[in-house]
Amino acid sequence: MKKQMNTPLFKALVEHNNKNPISFHFPGHKNGQNIQSEASHFFEQILKMDVTELSGLDDLHSPEGVILEAEQLLAELFQTRKSFFLVNGSTVGNLAMIMAACRENDTVLVQRNCHKSVLNALRLAKVRPVFLEPEYDHDWKVATCVNVDTVKEAIGLYLNVKAIILTYPNYYGIVSDLEGIIKEAHLHHIPVLVDEAHGAHFNIGHPFPASAVQLGADIVVQSAHKTLPAMTMGSYLHVNGHLVDVNKVKDYLQIFQSSSPSYPIMASLDLARKYLATYTQQDLDALQKSIKHFKAELENIPGIKVLSYPNQQGDLLKVTIQTRCNLSGFELQMRLEEEAVYTELADPYNVLLVLPLLKEGQRYPFGETGRKIKKVCKNLPFQEQKSKMTLSNRKVSELAISYMEMDKIESMDVLIAEAVGFVCAETIIPYPPGIPLLLKGEEITNERVNQLQRLLETGARFQGGSLLTQGKVKVFIKNKK
Amino acid sequence: MKKQMNTPLFKALVEHNNKNPISFHFPGHKNGQNIQSEASHFFEQILKMDVTELSGLDDLHSPEGVILEAEQLLAELFQTRKSFFLVNGSTVGNLAMIMAACRENDTVLVQRNCHKSVLNALRLAKVRPVFLEPEYDHDWKVATCVNVDTVKEAIGLYLNVKAIILTYPNYYGIVSDLEGIIKEAHLHHIPVLVDEAHGAHFNIGHPFPASAVQLGADIVVQSAHKTLPAMTMGSYLHVNGHLVDVNKVKDYLQIFQSSSPSYPIMASLDLARKYLATYTQQDLDALQKSIKHFKAELENIPGIKVLSYPNQQGDLLKVTIQTRCNLSGFELQMRLEEEAVYTELADPYNVLLVLPLLKEGQRYPFGETGRKIKKVCKNLPFQEQKSKMTLSNRKVSELAISYMEMDKIESMDVLIAEAVGFVCAETIIPYPPGIPLLLKGEEITNERVNQLQRLLETGARFQGGSLLTQGKVKVFIKNKK
Repeated sequence: MKKQMNTPLFKALVEHNNKNPISFHFPGHKNGQNIQSEASHFFEQILKMDVTELSGLDDLHSPEGVILEAEQLLAELFQTRKSFFLVNGSTVGNLAMIMAACRENDTVLVQRNCHKSVLNALRLAKVRPVFLEPEYDHDWKVATCVNVDTVKEAIGLYLNVKAIILTYPNYYGIVSDLEGIIKEAHLHHIPVLVDEAHGAHFNIGHPFPASAVQLGADIVVQSAHKTLPAMTMGSYLHVNGHLVDVNKVKDYLQIFQSSSPSYPIMASLDLARKYLATYTQQDLDALQKSIKHFKAELENIPGIKVLSYPNQQGDLLKVTIQTRCNLSGFELQMRLEEEAVYTELADPYNVLLVLPLLKEGQRYPFGETGRKIKKVCKNLPFQEQKSKMTLSNRKVSELAISYMEMDKIESMDVLIAEAVGFVCAETIIPYPPGIPLLLKGEEITNERVNQLQRLLETGARFQGGSLLTQGKVKVFIKNKK
Repeated sequence: MKKQMNTPLFKALVEHNNKNPISFHFPGHKNGQNIQSEASHFFEQILKMDVTELSGLDDLHSPEGVILEAEQLLAELFQTRKSFFLVNGSTVGNLAMIMAACRENDTVLVQRNCHKSVLNALRLAKVRPVFLEPEYDHDWKVATCVNVDTVKEAIGLYLNVKAIILTYPNYYGIVSDLEGIIKEAHLHHIPVLVDEAHGAHFNIGHPFPASAVQLGADIVVQSAHKTLPAMTMGSYLHVNGHLVDVNKVKDYLQIFQSSSPSYPIMASLDLARKYLATYTQQDLDALQKSIKHFKAELENIPGIKVLSYPNQQGDLLKVTIQTRCNLSGFELQMRLEEEAVYTELADPYNVLLVLPLLKEGQRYPFGETGRKIKKVCKNLPFQEQKSKMTLSNRKVSELAISYMEMDKIESMDVLIAEAVGFVCAETIIPYPPGIPLLLKGEEITNERVNQLQRLLETGARFQGGSLLTQGKVKVFIKNKK
């Protein structure tokens, strides 16, 4: 525990700065000396740490000094075989994890509502993905997680599955029976790769759900920046067990990450690991008390409903409120922004608030926020939220055409309403939460068309789908089914 | 010009911060409120800008607001068809540029002493690379650039060349006849992709060499962080002409970059563009004067020689000093570090200093640096630097086996001295400068073995080559030639 109080990388940077070094190296701002006056207020101090691979500061891609030490402290905290610092977000973790574990034409099981970086990795690796439909929560009106039966069904249907790729928890903090899935997969010697972007803090323990690392997943990627006090793009990757090759992971990480990684981001990962390692029961008690109080205040506000996790299991730091008025989730989010309350995500029905992982004695403006939400919701007429979701009965599905084929077929534009039966030639992602609604290479079903139209009506933002404003989607030129 | 005074993205972040926003979104530090006290001195101010895709702050991967405006100002400054901000360094620029322009099995010409990210991109794209040997400067004792005749020879030898990939300038600031190469390539409708990592400031004009953008290259990647006052990992990518598909570049950039890009890095790219756009003739005059004075001081120091560019053409911001004493470049660099003077790079013979792109009125401790170098070199015996380089006569070469084959063959370890004739199974890169000495898939020649042994003797650092300390390299198990 005492060891975990150390921050070897951060300290090395402080010591370097204490030498009043003269920089004749990159970056061009020279420890911040060469910046514009308008920028100095925000940038001056951090730029003293924005250095390059100098003596004593190690090398992320081939660490043997302070970066290795810092990564070892991380591995000790999570009790992993090997842990890495990432400077290009969980995006790069997902790319490296999948490229390292899968080869061309491998059959891999993938949670359908995964992050787009997982889909990009499948395409780069040219695997044959088998998509597993997640469950759907009718109260929350969001897709949740894949259940064990779906995984069993898929393992039964496909021989030689080379990996299972899951998201745990989902964006809203909902968790699945990951332990059951891992047991089933390991019975068949299939490695389990987990995008735990939203669960970097789960090793604190109850009442937080267990971490995928603790549950025995083979590779786990965590966005330290999402819930720990790390800088954006700072993430962790953990390797466990012996079903995956650590050296391949390392190789792909150096391929996909800058050869000049950001020291401020790396130092913040070192500091965030210490923050997590030194989180005490008293901190947790104080945090739970604050959150309980905050939620109680929100529960008294007419016009919204504070959602409870299915089976009381979920991330304490996430609070999802559902509108019970004539505002959509998107509209409620906008009204809150006018009050300078910025939330993480809205969907047609909900607004997601991500709370800070406070320690005892740290304060946060929960009371002020509660009053602002109350103000925004004042005098709005009550309205039950009804969803017109049609759910798929197919739990396991494949792409209609392979990634190799896709590279060779031309595409055209068709009206959304007329797209049913075509193979989609683009991936359309409402963002946030960054979960694809239509996958490139997937058949366009009636259900997907309905969901797309509902999202367009309620003003969601999209990545991909450049023709959506014209009411069109791109499809492959191929006979309709 | 007045337009270029604006910094739309930086300003939007300042305005957001001025609202005293309450954060219920990522990252977990909540505008810096939730950090450890030891970190606050360095991190407190910048974390107010370390936000996520909030309303008014646009989205790097699908920009339509302040990020688009900031990128358009960059495109206007460089007069390009389209310019992008990158948050994962020139590494991601090189990956995206090559993946976008090349398909599997395409024949592409590649400068042999390219950055490792270019080699990684070739492997990912599974192209058939044809390596072009650079020239070698006997005074500098470093590899420089590819000349026009080598390009002509290769175009004559290979039908259907799909791209030419070059590095311009080299790490030391030396430039080639890039204009001549581009003319030759465009005669054959071959796009020219340029890794201009070290030349982000070249559009300032004479006495800086011309920028690859000005010379008509089709895609150009620049490390803004290297020579402009941008944060590390901040780069630019420019697309010109109509031989390459902008949408493919965009697609690969979103694949290879974090879906939570760093706003501090993006804001610093916006500020760096303004810095460059507002660089005046007076600034340049003052800079030239300072550098002339600094070099004159260095020229008076016995024990070192200040190198001059071949044909007086090269990057003003780079000053390379060669030892004329009993210290290697690596040793001289270490001695300077003991005086708190940190340089960018050392090789067996040279130390490279990268100077700041100062504006008029900005000061830099050149005088102090000169005195420190003098102190370090005092009383060292004169020694001429002799190199035992054996140069290759083959200007154009291919890999011994394809990337597809490499994935299928096992490897073993052999002693370096006995490795001649084997196919190398790892890429060995002395770092800095990050230029591979031995490529994975390349035949190990006598010349490469000699160079490797010389580097080991003089204490170079390596990426790859994990067995070098045991005097071994990895080779593919295949009959020796």
